[in-house]
Amino acid sequence: MSDKKFMMEYEDEGRYCFGFAQEKTLYKGKTKYQDIELCKTKLFGNTLKLDGFFQTSEGEEWFYHETLTHPALMAHPNPKRVLVIGGGDAGIAREVLQHSTVEKVTVAELDGGVIEFSKKYLKKISGGAFASKRAEFLVCDGKKYIEESKEKFDVILIDLTDPIGPARPLFEVPFYKTVKAHLNKNGIVALQSEPPIFKPKVFSWVNGNLRKAFKNVFPYLNYIPLYGTMWSFTFASADVDPRKITAQILHKRMKDRGVKNLKWYTPEIHIGLFNLPPYVQKLIKK
Amino acid sequence: MSDKKFMMEYEDEGRYCFGFAQEKTLYKGKTKYQDIELCKTKLFGNTLKLDGFFQTSEGEEWFYHETLTHPALMAHPNPKRVLVIGGGDAGIAREVLQHSTVEKVTVAELDGGVIEFSKKYLKKISGGAFASKRAEFLVCDGKKYIEESKEKFDVILIDLTDPIGPARPLFEVPFYKTVKAHLNKNGIVALQSEPPIFKPKVFSWVNGNLRKAFKNVFPYLNYIPLYGTMWSFTFASADVDPRKITAQILHKRMKDRGVKNLKWYTPEIHIGLFNLPPYVQKLIKK
Repeated sequence: MSDKKFMMEYEDEGRYCFGFAQEKTLYKGKTKYQDIELCKTKLFGNTLKLDGFFQTSEGEEWFYHETLTHPALMAHPNPKRVLVIGGGDAGIAREVLQHSTVEKVTVAELDGGVIEFSKKYLKKISGGAFASKRAEFLVCDGKKYIEESKEKFDVILIDLTDPIGPARPLFEVPFYKTVKAHLNKNGIVALQSEPPIFKPKVFSWVNGNLRKAFKNVFPYLNYIPLYGTMWSFTFASADVDPRKITAQILHKRMKDRGVKNLKWYTPEIHIGLFNLPPYVQKLIKK
Repeated sequence: MSDKKFMMEYEDEGRYCFGFAQEKTLYKGKTKYQDIELCKTKLFGNTLKLDGFFQTSEGEEWFYHETLTHPALMAHPNPKRVLVIGGGDAGIAREVLQHSTVEKVTVAELDGGVIEFSKKYLKKISGGAFASKRAEFLVCDGKKYIEESKEKFDVILIDLTDPIGPARPLFEVPFYKTVKAHLNKNGIVALQSEPPIFKPKVFSWVNGNLRKAFKNVFPYLNYIPLYGTMWSFTFASADVDPRKITAQILHKRMKDRGVKNLKWYTPEIHIGLFNLPPYVQKLIKK
């Protein structure tokens, strides 16, 4: 089979590659900041690429969005105010809005082009989030936004591309300290923290940076089909330990908040989520 | 980058493909039953292909071998007699032999060529298993072997290729009933049961077949780098429920048996292992 029919991605200096059979390119263009491409794939439906890297797809977006959102939101006793940095496709906002406790979620997305594009082509991902009265979408530099903000948040979700280029400062210690300063008591931050098997050094570096700002830092894993490997996410907080919650409490929170129809997250999954295999443990040794 | 430098695999009727940068082909030939190919890859070292499908590699073989072996062995209070069907590379035998309770492990491998090849080219995978006095390697049809055997086993591990072609009858109900008849009290069988995301129908079919033979059937998941996706394994037993063991008991068993230096398995991972996400639960609904 020719690779021309595939939309391919080469990872880790070309040592690994993967791709999906592609029916047609639906859109190819540029926003103010990056190349943007939408392809129809046989496996995952409409699939978004930014600067040549797979970002999300309508068919499997819930792996990433549930995994980044619910462990943090569910570990918080009463999340009212939520900030998403990045996340212009509104998939995270959609999952956050499932929690009825949330009064307002602000999405601070650098690239307005991604928001416009997602409204038009990726409606299955945003659900009704763009129209929600509880959601606010700002086109701005998320780092600057939080630095200048006088608000504090209950949960901050950082939904960024890889820590190369412009996103890099948002994976570094000064930024994490700013994030911490903008969290209320019981405040939690969660972020994608790169694949531990294929990018162990980046994973270790991000976790080390987080530990310089937060007392409780807990990486966790989930396989993300579109990224072609086991991915890591990290939960960090000054005062919340996500392992010290019972499944019973989590079930009650899910029910009380009206969180339902999830495809990956369950309270039982949450309980086991922070038990890491030794191959990951050794990457986060202090 | 040209795909010619990659050793590629196309899965699921060509909807998904993945591959690894290849330095050189070390061996390409045929055994009595199948094409056999050994490649040196940048990411995983020496990598084995049978009939064009990735089987195992020196760099990441422990994901598969630990995942198939230890949940079953550790759930058994005192495994003495173990049968491996398939597994001619001896990776499973190596992990089984870590349990000091095991008096004898028999590996019933159809293809003698795989055993000879593994002894020569994949020494890191077998460790000392081929030389162990507690291990027996037979070149025979595993189905016929167990049908004709008068022995009973404490644990049977089925390490087969995909259920297409000659391996298929070993995924079907009559074979599972034969396996059950050859298990002692507290006997356990574990097997690879295909990827639930990319082959949901095959995964459901295998689990349905197992439920027709065993009271307790528990699938579990692990990401296998060489297979490029989240894979499933299934634990089945007439009388053992692997969820009803405490981490404390598992820690004691590991210590007493001298099982160590594992890269994936821990008692805490075992405890959470059988809690499946809804997207997998719905595939095994009765």
